[in-house]
Amino acid sequence: MRILIANVNTTTAITDAIAEQARSVASPGTEIVGLTPWFGAESVEGNFESYLAAIAVMDRVLNFDQPYDAVIQAGYGEHGREGLQELLDVPVVDITDAAASTAMYLGHKYSVVTTLDRTVPLIEDRLKLSGLYDRCASVRASGLAVLDLEADPQRAVQAIVEQAERAVREDKAEVICLGCGGMAGLDEQIRQRTGVPVVDGVSAAVSIAESLVRLGLSTSKVRTYATPRAKKVVGWPMMFGR
Amino acid sequence: MRILIANVNTTTAITDAIAEQARSVASPGTEIVGLTPWFGAESVEGNFESYLAAIAVMDRVLNFDQPYDAVIQAGYGEHGREGLQELLDVPVVDITDAAASTAMYLGHKYSVVTTLDRTVPLIEDRLKLSGLYDRCASVRASGLAVLDLEADPQRAVQAIVEQAERAVREDKAEVICLGCGGMAGLDEQIRQRTGVPVVDGVSAAVSIAESLVRLGLSTSKVRTYATPRAKKVVGWPMMFGR
Amino acid sequence: MRILIANVNTTTAITDAIAEQARSVASPGTEIVGLTPWFGAESVEGNFESYLAAIAVMDRVLNFDQPYDAVIQAGYGEHGREGLQELLDVPVVDITDAAASTAMYLGHKYSVVTTLDRTVPLIEDRLKLSGLYDRCASVRASGLAVLDLEADPQRAVQAIVEQAERAVREDKAEVICLGCGGMAGLDEQIRQRTGVPVVDGVSAAVSIAESLVRLGLSTSKVRTYATPRAKKVVGWPMMFGR
Amino acid sequence: MRILIANVNTTTAITDAIAEQARSVASPGTEIVGLTPWFGAESVEGNFESYLAAIAVMDRVLNFDQPYDAVIQAGYGEHGREGLQELLDVPVVDITDAAASTAMYLGHKYSVVTTLDRTVPLIEDRLKLSGLYDRCASVRASGLAVLDLEADPQRAVQAIVEQAERAVREDKAEVICLGCGGMAGLDEQIRQRTGVPVVDGVSAAVSIAESLVRLGLSTSKVRTYATPRAKKVVGWPMMFGR
Amino acid sequence: MRILIANVNTTTAITDAIAEQARSVASPGTEIVGLTPWFGAESVEGNFESYLAAIAVMDRVLNFDQPYDAVIQAGYGEHGREGLQELLDVPVVDITDAAASTAMYLGHKYSVVTTLDRTVPLIEDRLKLSGLYDRCASVRASGLAVLDLEADPQRAVQAIVEQAERAVREDKAEVICLGCGGMAGLDEQIRQRTGVPVVDGVSAAVSIAESLVRLGLSTSKVRTYATPRAKKVVGWPMMFGR
Amino acid sequence: MRILIANVNTTTAITDAIAEQARSVASPGTEIVGLTPWFGAESVEGNFESYLAAIAVMDRVLNFDQPYDAVIQAGYGEHGREGLQELLDVPVVDITDAAASTAMYLGHKYSVVTTLDRTVPLIEDRLKLSGLYDRCASVRASGLAVLDLEADPQRAVQAIVEQAERAVREDKAEVICLGCGGMAGLDEQIRQRTGVPVVDGVSAAVSIAESLVRLGLSTSKVRTYATPRAKKVVGWPMMFGR
Repeated sequence: MRILIANVNTTTAITDAIAEQARSVASPGTEIVGLTPWFGAESVEGNFESYLAAIAVMDRVLNFDQPYDAVIQAGYGEHGREGLQELLDVPVVDITDAAASTAMYLGHKYSVVTTLDRTVPLIEDRLKLSGLYDRCASVRASGLAVLDLEADPQRAVQAIVEQAERAVREDKAEVICLGCGGMAGLDEQIRQRTGVPVVDGVSAAVSIAESLVRLGLSTSKVRTYATPRAKKVVGWPMMFGR
Repeated sequence: MRILIANVNTTTAITDAIAEQARSVASPGTEIVGLTPWFGAESVEGNFESYLAAIAVMDRVLNFDQPYDAVIQAGYGEHGREGLQELLDVPVVDITDAAASTAMYLGHKYSVVTTLDRTVPLIEDRLKLSGLYDRCASVRASGLAVLDLEADPQRAVQAIVEQAERAVREDKAEVICLGCGGMAGLDEQIRQRTGVPVVDGVSAAVSIAESLVRLGLSTSKVRTYATPRAKKVVGWPMMFGR
Repeated sequence: MRILIANVNTTTAITDAIAEQARSVASPGTEIVGLTPWFGAESVEGNFESYLAAIAVMDRVLNFDQPYDAVIQAGYGEHGREGLQELLDVPVVDITDAAASTAMYLGHKYSVVTTLDRTVPLIEDRLKLSGLYDRCASVRASGLAVLDLEADPQRAVQAIVEQAERAVREDKAEVICLGCGGMAGLDEQIRQRTGVPVVDGVSAAVSIAESLVRLGLSTSKVRTYATPRAKKVVGWPMMFGR
Repeated sequence: MRILIANVNTTTAITDAIAEQARSVASPGTEIVGLTPWFGAESVEGNFESYLAAIAVMDRVLNFDQPYDAVIQAGYGEHGREGLQELLDVPVVDITDAAASTAMYLGHKYSVVTTLDRTVPLIEDRLKLSGLYDRCASVRASGLAVLDLEADPQRAVQAIVEQAERAVREDKAEVICLGCGGMAGLDEQIRQRTGVPVVDGVSAAVSIAESLVRLGLSTSKVRTYATPRAKKVVGWPMMFGR
Repeated sequence: MRILIANVNTTTAITDAIAEQARSVASPGTEIVGLTPWFGAESVEGNFESYLAAIAVMDRVLNFDQPYDAVIQAGYGEHGREGLQELLDVPVVDITDAAASTAMYLGHKYSVVTTLDRTVPLIEDRLKLSGLYDRCASVRASGLAVLDLEADPQRAVQAIVEQAERAVREDKAEVICLGCGGMAGLDEQIRQRTGVPVVDGVSAAVSIAESLVRLGLSTSKVRTYATPRAKKVVGWPMMFGR
Repeated sequence: MRILIANVNTTTAITDAIAEQARSVASPGTEIVGLTPWFGAESVEGNFESYLAAIAVMDRVLNFDQPYDAVIQAGYGEHGREGLQELLDVPVVDITDAAASTAMYLGHKYSVVTTLDRTVPLIEDRLKLSGLYDRCASVRASGLAVLDLEADPQRAVQAIVEQAERAVREDKAEVICLGCGGMAGLDEQIRQRTGVPVVDGVSAAVSIAESLVRLGLSTSKVRTYATPRAKKVVGWPMMFGR
């Protein structure tokens, strides 16, 4: 099967890292295609950038001209998943949901460690809308910007470990979710240093997407995620990056 | 003061109706400017269209080249308000929130009557995120599409009255919110026929926006709605409708 | 229009301060009438005093013998608003609700800074019943009694600023509500010192009351706030302060 | 021990019926004293009347000049219990809470059957504040006014049974609470006709009050229910019925 | 009347202490019978041991061959109460619920102080399922194992007092529940040292059980707790301890 | 990898059906071993039977004497999963959770269709504890007992379809979960007749278990699901079925 994994920012190095992480956990026979939006911000750390990313991801996915079996949206706490679910017939998995639903099989409470403090409310709100917040002990910010993760991975690990340890000790988390697509690949290091299971959303999303495809399950089209009604839409699809 | 009121769809007749309604309740000295997005759907009835509208509204507002004191987003249950709050220093009021917070001063429970069934979950989710859902008795669909409201107002009134009456009788609503920007102006008719207060979100939003401006209050910039960080953003602003 | 603003305690200096604050934000043409209950406590800091105030405010308002367009109950977290809503046909606005619903337009979470610790649960409970608690980050006590606010305003500002700063830093509040009618007028000082928007409930309530009157909206009479049934009521109205 | 049971309305026939019911379940050695407020409404069916009753009950209890061990407030869904808790050192039990906490030992969900539809939100709100609402399946109105219960008990039983049956069948209630002090004594008939346990709040409250006294437990005075601070209170105690 | 009080562990010294505590508060004429399970763990501090105890308690109670009027399950936060409710016609009271529902009559918020940290989530979950969690300020662990309570009561008191004080000061608890059957009898000491009411679940449960019996109330059999259907059950009753 | 899938009842025909369903979706290389408890009820339809099954499943799994990589508990809404998580180092997946977390990727709300009405509260409670209830539209009973499903599959399909259709139409479910291990294999028929995705919990659980194993994730051992402390446990392991 072929799974598209869409980065939410325009930084191709992050797309590559995400796709590489996805490939490392994909089953034999699963092809992973990383997509970078044609417009938007180099990193997504707030609502404006996230809304822009939502549209940019939809635009990019719609313009992928070969068949595919599932789509992963690889931004943590981002807007847009519901739009993809309307536009597509294949399953759509957001890494925020994937990490949370996976963590809930592993411990009584989980925490998310993310980048900047300003993105914490976005992640909390997305988890609430997804109905996966009840067992969330906390969402904690490491204070690092998205691009800092690329620039200095060891400093990133250190900052994330520190918050993960506080989440376990103070917030009673029993599992840690890595709250940023750009953190893909850091899970093993952090697990060793905290002693609790660490869930990388990209890996979790690949597993879930593969499972949904294998089980023949896809988005329900009877109400919320029904295909958009035929109507006049100006300026869409955008494709202006081409 | 000058208040921008942004329609979420590209149908200028609806922009005009919204602006007219806004003007009818605005204080002397308040100038109302109706804005129509330069791209997007002719009516917004789902997540894809709503996400596109979110960006189109931000794009249109940012390209308004004169001073203004507040912005109203005139779509019911739509995405995007948080993005405007980040981008602007003036207060931003969404009509979904405005109708709900106003209704809560008038009765113990309120219901929303909207257009199509598929938009009900969007409205419920927006009210939940806004923290205004606890006293919502129900969100009911009249079954009419947005453009049907324009085309046949009397049929619209009939369909809305029917759901409003059921909301009062079955769901124990004590106030009705008109759940669509395009319903502006129908409130008086519906009030007469149901006997309960009817809140038009556009009117409520104008009052709230005026109040915030007069009280010298605007969006907090310390965390969630801080100005986006300086960074590379490809393809923005869009302005491609010009 | 004429708006009655009822103090909940019997201290006329506080009534005067509240009315003065109300006048400072009222629109031209709005007459503000401050009312002091004819019986009750010199300050309201608990349930017994608050229940007594509830009845004293109803008694005082019912005995106001000229027309009026709206009533504001100017006690934070007090009982009684629902009784006024039953007894009157004009809109009734409580400053607890007014501050909270206004704060929610300004930030993702708000905190209330009030007087004594013992009143915190009252405020929390009123916000819960009003359906405005979801986005409340905290209710914090400054440790000052109501009458201390009058006696030493600078000490009051200092104590309130300290809790406001902790609310922003520790509880992640983005807006501060001044949790006592007697704090009216301190908002600007506190805003300057905390850097976040500060909402004074009296000012917010005046704006909301004016808006409701202008929009022709008042309390729904179909169920919860229907006029009391005709029946024998001993000792009412009380008017014993006359 | 001596337990005061305070009716919330001024109808002495109801006080007598409540006291009689209380006596029928009291332990040997427990003296039940029924109190009728000196002012207020002949029946309490809304917020205004309930707030007045709150004060009237406090006034009446404070003027009881002999020792007592506990106080029961015998109105369903009424305001005021927290005020009594502040004023008194002995335990205070509200029949709304007593019925609910007892019902929760008997079935997975309980329903309340009360008098008029307009009192339903009061009962729901009191149960929410008391933290006893989670397992409430519904609060249903029989449509009978409080005084109708006195006037025509058989019609009352019929109307209550009908709603109780619907609560069991439609709302999945497994226990019924009689939602009015005036319903005391109807429990056995209704139990026979519905087949589920029926909890009379007065009986439940007597048992709970006796238990608290025997266990040497009373209201915590460290915060919410601390004795009111010493201060000037005009017109209190009222005692004007004397 | 005769009340069975079932210990959840196999340590007879704890059964004896529980029964002694129960007898000290029981009414004249109430016979208390302490039961020790015939199998299971010497102390119950986690899910496996608690599930085993659930079955062992049912097995032990079913094999009690004389009449009885009520059953108390004397483990804090344990599984199994619903099974007893299905199997028996007499009332079943769990000490976790009994302590919580009693504490709610005494203060605005209560905290539970229990043994090991690992049992905190079990207690929280049981309180949530019982609908008694809304007013729980915290569940705190003293760090002592169940058998430590027996071995060194003074150290136990010290550790419990310390957490109780933090619950009052930091979590705003106004009442403390002793969160372990083995703590029975420590309530008076802890009350003296914290200044807030202390509820011992065993004592509370005896009072509630006696009340239910006197009021003629027992488990509803219409749905959740209906008698198990007749069917083939292998290996039951177990009785293998005989 | 080898996955143990434990039936909760003693009916081997159901174990066989479950295992067959599991095998039909398992990846190549995954060995499915069906386990039937050595004691307990022939069908599990209530709390007593479910608690007994909890212990019987733990007993049966612990006595499986070959290596395995994950365990699935194949009863819907049953007790016991947390005990297995404590006892084992490999991941444990309950089909109730698996169906729900999978359904949440497919639609905005899901409903569960189960067997008897008496089991509905058990399923609701388990979903609440698992933090997966927010997006549950309803749990509906088909009225068929577990063994009826075996005896007359066509009648079962008919009864389940009827409730599924009502869940979609009346409760606004967009996905249906088959709420009984014994329904495994009926998903395709029901999907064809309702038009919405149908999730079989056994299939979902196999996918999730495989995913967790492949990602190297297992139960967190830091708190709630830590290995039971070493202590004296009488009568365990049971193994009396041998």
